Amino acid sequence: MKQQQHPLDFVFKPKSVAVTGASPGKNGLMFLSCYINSGYKGKLYPINSKGGEVCGLKAYTSINELPEPVDFVMCCIPNTAVPDFIRDCGAKGVKVVCVFTAGFSEAGTEEGRRLELEVVRAARESGVRVVGPNCLGPYTPEVGLSFTVDFPSESGSVAFLCQSGGNSVSTTREAAARGVRFSKVISYGNACNINECDYLEYLDQDDETEIVAIYIEGVRDGPRFHRTLAKLCQRKPVVILKGGFTQAGAKAAASHTGSLAGSDLVLDGLLKQAGAIRVDSLEEMVDVLVTFYLLPTPQGRRLSIVGAGGGSTVLATDDWARNGFFLPQLPPAIREELRRSIPNEAGLILHNPVDLSLFAFGPNAEFFLTTLVNRADYADLTIFHQGFGQSGWIPSDTTEALLDNAINAYLKVKSQTDRPLLLVLQHLISGWDWKKGVDDVQKRCTAAGIPVYHSMFGAAKAVDTVLRYYEKRRNGA
Amino acid sequence: MKQQQHPLDFVFKPKSVAVTGASPGKNGLMFLSCYINSGYKGKLYPINSKGGEVCGLKAYTSINELPEPVDFVMCCIPNTAVPDFIRDCGAKGVKVVCVFTAGFSEAGTEEGRRLELEVVRAARESGVRVVGPNCLGPYTPEVGLSFTVDFPSESGSVAFLCQSGGNSVSTTREAAARGVRFSKVISYGNACNINECDYLEYLDQDDETEIVAIYIEGVRDGPRFHRTLAKLCQRKPVVILKGGFTQAGAKAAASHTGSLAGSDLVLDGLLKQAGAIRVDSLEEMVDVLVTFYLLPTPQGRRLSIVGAGGGSTVLATDDWARNGFFLPQLPPAIREELRRSIPNEAGLILHNPVDLSLFAFGPNAEFFLTTLVNRADYADLTIFHQGFGQSGWIPSDTTEALLDNAINAYLKVKSQTDRPLLLVLQHLISGWDWKKGVDDVQKRCTAAGIPVYHSMFGAAKAVDTVLRYYEKRRNGA
Repeated sequence: MKQQQHPLDFVFKPKSVAVTGASPGKNGLMFLSCYINSGYKGKLYPINSKGGEVCGLKAYTSINELPEPVDFVMCCIPNTAVPDFIRDCGAKGVKVVCVFTAGFSEAGTEEGRRLELEVVRAARESGVRVVGPNCLGPYTPEVGLSFTVDFPSESGSVAFLCQSGGNSVSTTREAAARGVRFSKVISYGNACNINECDYLEYLDQDDETEIVAIYIEGVRDGPRFHRTLAKLCQRKPVVILKGGFTQAGAKAAASHTGSLAGSDLVLDGLLKQAGAIRVDSLEEMVDVLVTFYLLPTPQGRRLSIVGAGGGSTVLATDDWARNGFFLPQLPPAIREELRRSIPNEAGLILHNPVDLSLFAFGPNAEFFLTTLVNRADYADLTIFHQGFGQSGWIPSDTTEALLDNAINAYLKVKSQTDRPLLLVLQHLISGWDWKKGVDDVQKRCTAAGIPVYHSMFGAAKAVDTVLRYYEKRRNGA
Repeated sequence: MKQQQHPLDFVFKPKSVAVTGASPGKNGLMFLSCYINSGYKGKLYPINSKGGEVCGLKAYTSINELPEPVDFVMCCIPNTAVPDFIRDCGAKGVKVVCVFTAGFSEAGTEEGRRLELEVVRAARESGVRVVGPNCLGPYTPEVGLSFTVDFPSESGSVAFLCQSGGNSVSTTREAAARGVRFSKVISYGNACNINECDYLEYLDQDDETEIVAIYIEGVRDGPRFHRTLAKLCQRKPVVILKGGFTQAGAKAAASHTGSLAGSDLVLDGLLKQAGAIRVDSLEEMVDVLVTFYLLPTPQGRRLSIVGAGGGSTVLATDDWARNGFFLPQLPPAIREELRRSIPNEAGLILHNPVDLSLFAFGPNAEFFLTTLVNRADYADLTIFHQGFGQSGWIPSDTTEALLDNAINAYLKVKSQTDRPLLLVLQHLISGWDWKKGVDDVQKRCTAAGIPVYHSMFGAAKAVDTVLRYYEKRRNGA
């Protein structure tokens, strides 16, 4: 007996896709280009009023003309034409229509609200499920479906449910640049037919998804959302950012996705009760995702901090200490071992935190780091931090070599251990001329599975958040 | 009658400078190169054991050999030799010795503490004033003295008193990249002879300094520090970051600058009572400096927010609202005027906050922004925000032109108005490939006097901090 497919399978893993408005200067062409660029594995049908050929594919002049009832249609036609288009799709046997077009309830006009109700009715009557309107739709690397040209082609276990198109792009891209890989991402807009609860239920039973991130501006059905979220939180970590949680922000959210926000206090209680992890910014969301995804969970809060720079070492220690971590003493045996290896230790601080000073860039770097990490039974987590700013102290013609030394040391340590370690490359500390260098370091370290952060406090807060999540679960809360 | 010079004039504006250890591979050469590179205007004397010529300058083999008693000596000789060197300098008539060398009280050894006491005694007995040890010394653009190769050569009105060398480099560089200019910066290390109070008293009477930033790890004389700081705060805004304010951080600070930290609660009370502005990070310090230095003070908390991107607009509104700002309605007349100028307003949100969507990059950008800002009697401050991430929506061959359009619009608005406005270029929102573009935008906008921030919350918090500072002063607090 054939198992029935979940309707949202057609959203995330359609076997065939049609794109309307697929002609030069139209938004449909952007989607078509993205799908081709990301290597979509199913059948792809451009639709435009003139037919012909687009991006090397035969174009059709209407949904009726298609040789098959496609699973998924990306719809970029004018808002007033959308309801009838959905009915046409229903007649053709299309499963899902994703409406990119804006100008519905979020427009704040009577006409916009009416049109959105029309969309809802057309969907219900024609049996088509609708994503959006006012959204970018799905990114599913497994089937090669992406709404940008630069998201990774590899899959991972993070799902991101995002009510904003722009935020789905920036957050996914930044998380991806730092090593997070996604099972699926959906920019879902006004959520007039398939809503956030439908997505959450789907992600709950989705074996490819282990961690769920949510950016949400408004909830369509409070009680169901609470139930669904609580159930999901029982099985998977859920990181959530509520956009429009202030009164002014809520007003802006109404204009953006037609969302009606409730009291923030009520929402905050609801999220806590459900067991979700609430974050205050997209930056914090990425930090938490990187931590869940890349950092082996530390067994405790004992830290070893290793870096270059006295002042940044002091501030790093403050940032971790105020997030509930502490620094045990560096065992005298390790200290002696390090000390023996160098003739002159001026500027080097052999306590915990360790300030390697310029040794971080020198030939001893690898020896220092491996000794500090591989023998680090005294710590549950090692923090590397490194600025690459040119201070005049390092002749610029040798910077490449020095950088390489430092990076190779990180990579060597990582290759030798499963111990939790992370790297903080602070924006502030890395001079403008060196930013490219920092990007390269991040790329190489991320590829090796090292979690990279851009702010010391952000890293400390994220690891604290993740540890508190596991502590709560251990306590059965 | 000749007015007597303040001893610290010889620190910040020496008429002649000698540098020890000025030979290849030695730290002295780094300082010498920096001084030459920054165009030091006084007499410059390299000292090394072999004499000869260094960087085109005649080198001397000892301080005694110099043809004149110099105002300032940068001392990079081994720690044990420093006390005698200071006595030699005294005999020669040198005014100030700045000790770069580390290995004094911060080493945490009996020997280190003893050596530092020796330095103090040598200074007192020989009449020489000592900066440091364990520091980089002064950056005074007016006389062309700098301890890096990339600080600006123009002067400004911000003084930065910094106990950490690394932090003085990263913070000054970042603030400079965002348009802040300095009267003087000092990396002052262990502060064994000239201490933080001496610097504060000097900056209090310094007409070139209007704003003071402080990074401090330990206070040598609590009561005097409190008195001096309170007096300074009466006349100038003082922004202060205390490094090592947690117990673990304080231990690290002891290893870094030999600082003994007191209770953070006591310090916090002391700073508040004195009227100083306490910040939690160097990033926040730079945000506050940029605000004091570049933003015309808003007369109230009514905001106009203008940007591209629905989700980022919602989050921007939240960030400002939770820092005590509010958004009045966009006057209908302005709304109508904007609406008339475009045939199709889909995606555009003509409320406050305004989401310009892709119009932010189009030919209408300048018209939109000038209309929104020049007629903005309804707002005290305009926030521009802009991501430059390539989402696949903008063909990459036209990105340069689009960026240019957006930047030119900002610059045009700024050139036409004295109204407070600022620009937020968020790291997260700007894709990696576009980072260089963002740097260019920042450079051009900063050069035009537009304050630029890298985090929306950071910008909101900094403007709130500055407004609260002026509100308190108006209330005579």
